[in-house]
Amino acid sequence: MEAAQLLAGQNLPGLIVVDEVGRPWTVLPGTQVLRMAVPAYCQDDPALARVIDEAEADLLLSGLAGRTVRQCLPEQPGELPVVDPDATVLEIGALMARTRSPLVAVVGEGGRMRGAVTVDALLDRMLAS
Amino acid sequence: MEAAQLLAGQNLPGLIVVDEVGRPWTVLPGTQVLRMAVPAYCQDDPALARVIDEAEADLLLSGLAGRTVRQCLPEQPGELPVVDPDATVLEIGALMARTRSPLVAVVGEGGRMRGAVTVDALLDRMLAS
Repeated sequence: MEAAQLLAGQNLPGLIVVDEVGRPWTVLPGTQVLRMAVPAYCQDDPALARVIDEAEADLLLSGLAGRTVRQCLPEQPGELPVVDPDATVLEIGALMARTRSPLVAVVGEGGRMRGAVTVDALLDRMLAS
Repeated sequence: MEAAQLLAGQNLPGLIVVDEVGRPWTVLPGTQVLRMAVPAYCQDDPALARVIDEAEADLLLSGLAGRTVRQCLPEQPGELPVVDPDATVLEIGALMARTRSPLVAVVGEGGRMRGAVTVDALLDRMLAS
């Protein structure tokens, strides 16, 4: 619930989940944070999602309370959108396009997160030059 | 180039491309707009993206000028994230999660676009209630 609120409250394209020592563990686009809130049977069956009314939908969302991000994460994360501080603009762009992640984590020594680059910021930089 | 500028200038999670009569033809997340600007050989090979320096990367982007969105689109768009005005919050959420699109087009009569819902707006609505 906290993750969904963070995403909704700020204008973020996704969330970076870090482990105990601050290394990115996974990077979740907004749609995948949303996936946590939508029951699997609704994701696969549009007709089913349609018959659940708004009141019931609110109940489903409140079911998120108490569940951690770790519990909601997919088992097998794919390629992590992570770069080191020397990455070029093109390298980050290629990584975003390949992983379809609107957010790339920048890691320094020991793989610990130092910052992030969003697709908006990258396009701004590419178009400004 | 215009599409990339539109996306970068405003805080949009993607673009909806419509046909001559205003029907959504495809919905492009920001990362797929970026994909147009990144040569295919760089998307598949991080090492190659790395050796192209910033000056060359700027040249690559300027190569976009004069190319239309239609020319850059993938051949086979998947399921279109499009709903009618009666769609429920849960239905839109399920569609976003399934298609991984941070943007859903709302169409009215004749399939013409009437508006759009972003993942941010949807999460806001889900959490506010």
